Amino acid sequence: MIKNHNLKVHNSLSGEKETFVPIHKDSIGMYVCGPTVYSNVHLGNVRTFLSFDMIYRYLVHLGYKVRYVRNITDAGHLTDDGNVDNDRFVKQSRLEKLEPMEIVQKYTVDFHKVLETFNLLPPTIEPTATGHILEQIELAQKLIELGLAYEINGSVYFDVVAYNQKGLNYGELSRRNIDDLINNTRDLDGQDEKRNPVDFALWKNASPAHIMRWGSPWGEGFPGWHLECTVMSTKYLGEFFDIHGGGMDLKFPHHECEIAQAKGANGQEPVKYWLHANMLTMNGQRMSKSTGNYILPMQLVSGENDFFEKPFHPGIVRFCFLQAHYRSVLDISNDAMLASEKGFNRLMDGIKNLDFIQNSKESTFDVQNWLKDCYAAMDDDFNTPILISHLFDAVRVINGAKAGTEKLSSDDIEVLKKSLNEFVFDVMGLKSDEASNGKNDKLDGTVQLLIKMRNQARVDKNWALSDQIRDELAAIGIQLKDGKDGTEYSLN
Amino acid sequence: MIKNHNLKVHNSLSGEKETFVPIHKDSIGMYVCGPTVYSNVHLGNVRTFLSFDMIYRYLVHLGYKVRYVRNITDAGHLTDDGNVDNDRFVKQSRLEKLEPMEIVQKYTVDFHKVLETFNLLPPTIEPTATGHILEQIELAQKLIELGLAYEINGSVYFDVVAYNQKGLNYGELSRRNIDDLINNTRDLDGQDEKRNPVDFALWKNASPAHIMRWGSPWGEGFPGWHLECTVMSTKYLGEFFDIHGGGMDLKFPHHECEIAQAKGANGQEPVKYWLHANMLTMNGQRMSKSTGNYILPMQLVSGENDFFEKPFHPGIVRFCFLQAHYRSVLDISNDAMLASEKGFNRLMDGIKNLDFIQNSKESTFDVQNWLKDCYAAMDDDFNTPILISHLFDAVRVINGAKAGTEKLSSDDIEVLKKSLNEFVFDVMGLKSDEASNGKNDKLDGTVQLLIKMRNQARVDKNWALSDQIRDELAAIGIQLKDGKDGTEYSLN
Repeated sequence: MIKNHNLKVHNSLSGEKETFVPIHKDSIGMYVCGPTVYSNVHLGNVRTFLSFDMIYRYLVHLGYKVRYVRNITDAGHLTDDGNVDNDRFVKQSRLEKLEPMEIVQKYTVDFHKVLETFNLLPPTIEPTATGHILEQIELAQKLIELGLAYEINGSVYFDVVAYNQKGLNYGELSRRNIDDLINNTRDLDGQDEKRNPVDFALWKNASPAHIMRWGSPWGEGFPGWHLECTVMSTKYLGEFFDIHGGGMDLKFPHHECEIAQAKGANGQEPVKYWLHANMLTMNGQRMSKSTGNYILPMQLVSGENDFFEKPFHPGIVRFCFLQAHYRSVLDISNDAMLASEKGFNRLMDGIKNLDFIQNSKESTFDVQNWLKDCYAAMDDDFNTPILISHLFDAVRVINGAKAGTEKLSSDDIEVLKKSLNEFVFDVMGLKSDEASNGKNDKLDGTVQLLIKMRNQARVDKNWALSDQIRDELAAIGIQLKDGKDGTEYSLN
Repeated sequence: MIKNHNLKVHNSLSGEKETFVPIHKDSIGMYVCGPTVYSNVHLGNVRTFLSFDMIYRYLVHLGYKVRYVRNITDAGHLTDDGNVDNDRFVKQSRLEKLEPMEIVQKYTVDFHKVLETFNLLPPTIEPTATGHILEQIELAQKLIELGLAYEINGSVYFDVVAYNQKGLNYGELSRRNIDDLINNTRDLDGQDEKRNPVDFALWKNASPAHIMRWGSPWGEGFPGWHLECTVMSTKYLGEFFDIHGGGMDLKFPHHECEIAQAKGANGQEPVKYWLHANMLTMNGQRMSKSTGNYILPMQLVSGENDFFEKPFHPGIVRFCFLQAHYRSVLDISNDAMLASEKGFNRLMDGIKNLDFIQNSKESTFDVQNWLKDCYAAMDDDFNTPILISHLFDAVRVINGAKAGTEKLSSDDIEVLKKSLNEFVFDVMGLKSDEASNGKNDKLDGTVQLLIKMRNQARVDKNWALSDQIRDELAAIGIQLKDGKDGTEYSLN
């Protein structure tokens, strides 16, 4: 356990940064709303999951035992409550001529592959909505018994007005006024069986054509989307747990409904800290399939897209995402990605240069203070952009020490090695360029050997051979660059 | 659709090879018993899953639309019916101090990673036992109503004697005599609540300490292992489907119980063709943790083990497995793996050599007949060893054509290219060596350049330089080997 931290997190519930005090000393329960697996995962969602991956990694780095639950929504995600034909899985399965669970499997596999590409750690539990139908029925029953839900025509709705009459304050997270909501919510087509338009479905009666259906006390049907997260979070983390995360867009109604369901059933706030990640835009605009301002995560990596001049390896994308604070809007563009690539390479080169420094008796850089600053950045609501700026300070000093303009003691070099590795690889989850930019030990060995032979050729004034080596390497995509510190190379 | 095939499969139910006629023309339903995710997947299981991956790939290659269901057992796998403390998940979760669903997640992630390493395609649906608790309860209820199961002390057991009194023939798959079974099954400790020792659990009452539990008409409990496969196969494939696969060791009791449950509930045989894959031994002995004759799949690839002199890349393992028929026992050993490596490389080199053949007007090899033989091998119960021997015939001819001792027409070269690609990469699921043995274009380019420079050095009688190149390459794990056709290299 790394002690003496004063981690502060921005709690959406209070709207303020609060000191983070876990409910159970060294163990943390964290729930993050996962994907609805009816299509390829959106790059914006990848940013959200990556933000919580970084948070998870930092908490683990601090020494906490984290139970990290991220669900898979594989049933019941209606685009609106009113029309069961808007079940995303049923719709997509009709489109792709596949059984809904084949849709689920196809896009779950895709989701895992994309997240692995960007080096996200798997959560410690990954429960599915279909894996908790019984528990969802039980919770809906309990809410009916408590007078907080009602059955009508085989569907069950949460009674928001009854909830608020108990003084439980629906709208507390998103700071919405329930009366405004009730008065301003338009009555959508087919929602007239609800007592009030703000009520939301806990269970929906399945029409005869609806494939995904389960038996229940109210006839065959399927669970509402909000219910699953309450069931799965409390089942695995208890009725009161530390962190609930998700995208900003889920704050209302999804997270508001989660609070209402849990507070209604268990009589207490379910979550101590609500964390919300902000959205991703591209070229200054919202990403959306319909406008065409849209790119799949793997298209950014493969280069098969119309927005970026070249492919960017996953580590660069990851670095780019972490250059913005998770609560800020992040805009990606060709220029931003090129800048991130430069930054990423500079950081990796800096780490490598640590191996080529002559140590001095004294340092010209206060490494302990730097280390404190790094932790202070992360302790300040996981401020990765500030952390990165500190990392670049270290890189500047390391490069200086290599060039002889700065000095570092052997102790400080060791501290830098250890901390840079921890922050860059463990916490930020980047991979060394060996894995991510195509370089590897053997290739590096052969290129270094060729550089050495070319240097010898130049000493021998054998310009033909020297040029031949450079040109043949260029032909297979390896560029040599001669500088004052010798010859370096890059791959393209 | 590749027409005019006469695929025959060995059906364990009849004990004979039968002509394969799908129930629904061009669509096939296939169910394979998946892993119990309470520990790392066993190399023997990898062989089983790989066998069915090959079968799946061949059926897809033939043009069938295959719905391929492979489950994940994440609940209720008791080592025996009698003692609920033998729940594998509960036991392992106590051992690792994790919540059972953390155990499930940890080993599901491991399972997927291992299977991806060996290039297995994901199934089209991958349902979990915990995802079908409701359906399992419903089936148990139905069997009680039909007089084929009984409840006692909150547990539900299948009544084998009642089943057989209906003339339904328990034991038909494994060809066991029910009377012998009844008379010879020893009465295990704690099983006395069963009417007969051969009865098996559909639902088990959960002791107070049992964490994995769900509400049911019989109180809180959890499903028996056999029930889930019947529920998931019929839910996604119907009450009568084409292929059910699994390891030989599952034939009794697991698959026997599946038949009894389905036949009892639905009044018909559930499966048209039962396929069973045989076991894997190492150095002539059963693999088993307790005897120490045991290796994890990834240890074979990493080389971290005491049985093999070097690491073998996943493609070689895959090739080795396919060199035996799926219904034969396969023994792996250091020598066998080295032989497979040679064979694998020979096959890949042969495919590459196709690009360096001068085409002739006529061929000295009957390619159409060869192609027929290849399909005949696969149509004969997926006989991959025979297929591989035909592939080596083609390699011999290709190498001969390259050396000028055989002739191939341009048409035949095209047929060979297409079919070799289909059989080797699509059906057998091998990857070209570029991806699997660490070679890649850039590395190959630099090594070829160094070989060229070394050849020049030898022409110049510059032995020092020639030796330097060889030695420095060896130092980074690249071995040069001079032969009559020039210099080749290998990586280690």
